[in-house]
Amino acid sequence: MTRYGRAILRDVEAYLPGEQPQDPHVIKLNTNENPYPPAPEVLAALHNLDAQSLRKYPDPLSESLRTACAERYGVPGADWVVAGNGMDELLALALRAFVDPGDTVLTLYPTYTLYETLCAIHGCQLRYVPLDDALLPPESFFAEKARLCFLTRPNAPTGVAMARAEVERFCNSFDGVVVIDEAYVDFADDHCMDFPARFENAIVMRSFSKSFSMAGVRIGTAVARPALITEFLKIKDSYNMNAFSQAAGCAAMKAYDYMRERALKVCATRERLRETLLQLGFDVPPSQANFLLARCADAPTATRLFGALRERNILVRYFDKPRLDDALRISIGDDAETDALIAALREILAKD
Amino acid sequence: MTRYGRAILRDVEAYLPGEQPQDPHVIKLNTNENPYPPAPEVLAALHNLDAQSLRKYPDPLSESLRTACAERYGVPGADWVVAGNGMDELLALALRAFVDPGDTVLTLYPTYTLYETLCAIHGCQLRYVPLDDALLPPESFFAEKARLCFLTRPNAPTGVAMARAEVERFCNSFDGVVVIDEAYVDFADDHCMDFPARFENAIVMRSFSKSFSMAGVRIGTAVARPALITEFLKIKDSYNMNAFSQAAGCAAMKAYDYMRERALKVCATRERLRETLLQLGFDVPPSQANFLLARCADAPTATRLFGALRERNILVRYFDKPRLDDALRISIGDDAETDALIAALREILAKD
Repeated sequence: MTRYGRAILRDVEAYLPGEQPQDPHVIKLNTNENPYPPAPEVLAALHNLDAQSLRKYPDPLSESLRTACAERYGVPGADWVVAGNGMDELLALALRAFVDPGDTVLTLYPTYTLYETLCAIHGCQLRYVPLDDALLPPESFFAEKARLCFLTRPNAPTGVAMARAEVERFCNSFDGVVVIDEAYVDFADDHCMDFPARFENAIVMRSFSKSFSMAGVRIGTAVARPALITEFLKIKDSYNMNAFSQAAGCAAMKAYDYMRERALKVCATRERLRETLLQLGFDVPPSQANFLLARCADAPTATRLFGALRERNILVRYFDKPRLDDALRISIGDDAETDALIAALREILAKD
Repeated sequence: MTRYGRAILRDVEAYLPGEQPQDPHVIKLNTNENPYPPAPEVLAALHNLDAQSLRKYPDPLSESLRTACAERYGVPGADWVVAGNGMDELLALALRAFVDPGDTVLTLYPTYTLYETLCAIHGCQLRYVPLDDALLPPESFFAEKARLCFLTRPNAPTGVAMARAEVERFCNSFDGVVVIDEAYVDFADDHCMDFPARFENAIVMRSFSKSFSMAGVRIGTAVARPALITEFLKIKDSYNMNAFSQAAGCAAMKAYDYMRERALKVCATRERLRETLLQLGFDVPPSQANFLLARCADAPTATRLFGALRERNILVRYFDKPRLDDALRISIGDDAETDALIAALREILAKD
């Protein structure tokens, strides 16, 4: 710790992203990337950019991208959308726009661990309400008070999506801003994109990292009423989206059907894998995302499986945290990767 | 203002970047872009990226880029460097890493107007110390106390660079963090990149937007001792640099000589333009940047010239602020753009 640092950051630890091994032989099922490539139009749009696009400042407001998103999302216009350098930027901006340091932020547990890091950095209190045994919000959740709530739907790393009607009930009763984190929603049965029009406190966030296969490009969007979007625009970095991500995002929105087809393929593989995992004795909550949470008998079993898969060059995610330490989070790969995972699990379990 | 917004942001106005007209006939001398294209290797590196680079998460720590920068800057290693999504991101991070809301931040006046926006957003006080008549810091500046100081060298929008020895003296006497903003330093006679090794409170920041002709790519770097860099890494967005900006930055560092040659060309054009502007009766401080501040008789003259140039499709920057409202800031273009500017000025002034 330097003497120039802020006291509130003394004990903050940087968020630890999943491993990114460079070995191409590793089957990477640990960071919820999409196994399929992005639409060819996306790469083409990038390859079409010329030296002028590099030389000049990009559009500070990403107007083309926001307009394309507004049309696709079915909201009135670009002023209902803000684009971010990944959804992570928008989550951080939401705190800085709507929460004072010292205030309380609400979320459920377990959920996306980045919220905790972001709250620590901003100096606000994160209040966790534990999910019930079905991994759904308990009744007490609907009586909570806070400045802002992060509601991940489908939730990560459980994959479970609370009912839309329950989100609606929460938006109605909650006095603060509700950030509905829809990073995984393209793999789900339904979504809440109509909520910003219906609730003045609802912000729906989307990511291009998973369903669009564009984790390397960094694009997220937040959708809300213009009064809330204005607060984001006030405080975001002036040129937060580079020329490449703006062009790639526009191309991805045009090639929307390509994304939908691949997302459905991922969902089909997810159901196939879930059936097999259940047969193998795992407890696997029904998932609406591009991953499954495979719960084992206990924490030692989970860590042993994690290590044994790793020895076979298969990387999944293990969280050494309460209520997650007995489980593996497995991103959905393509068919060959899924078959390799199943074969490896059968082999490991047969030795027991 | 929404009732969900924070009180401290009520009166914050978003930073207003210079205009970005889409008309290709406009001679754009208003946002300090480089008139020459980036090195061909930069565009080639981008065109070489494949679908895999889009699909997977980028390196969260931008190790290759930071290593390349450390070598070029002559600092011990990548742990002395952090890469940002434009230098603007790093300026904002510096406040969040080293300044508590309510604290005082120091800078000179006039200078880069974004500092004021960033301080308002963070809820800290910006204390301006007026530059003297030679546009250099007054003696009183060296006795100031604050948590952090933004020192722009060469300064914008004046172009004047305070002496290196004076920066050294300031780093020695100042009790807080000194951010030496070297966005324009590749157009200057000398730099302060050796300061982080010599002063524990010095952070030197660089931009790829101007000298490298890469404003559209969004890359900035901050160089400091590892204890300070660690604070940046704790709080930055996990994946703040996309795959494209990392690849482009590495290629630019390899093609360093290409940048140097073009920067020298810009400096030569700057000196030629300055001579002419002096002959035309403007007061033009000696500039070490890729722009000139052309001071007119008074504010009405400056606004009239600004408008007359605009009518001729030549865009320069006008700041409606104290001590700047009698001047035009003119970015250095290529020879043809400079000739067109000079011809237009002669024509406008001849009519007087």
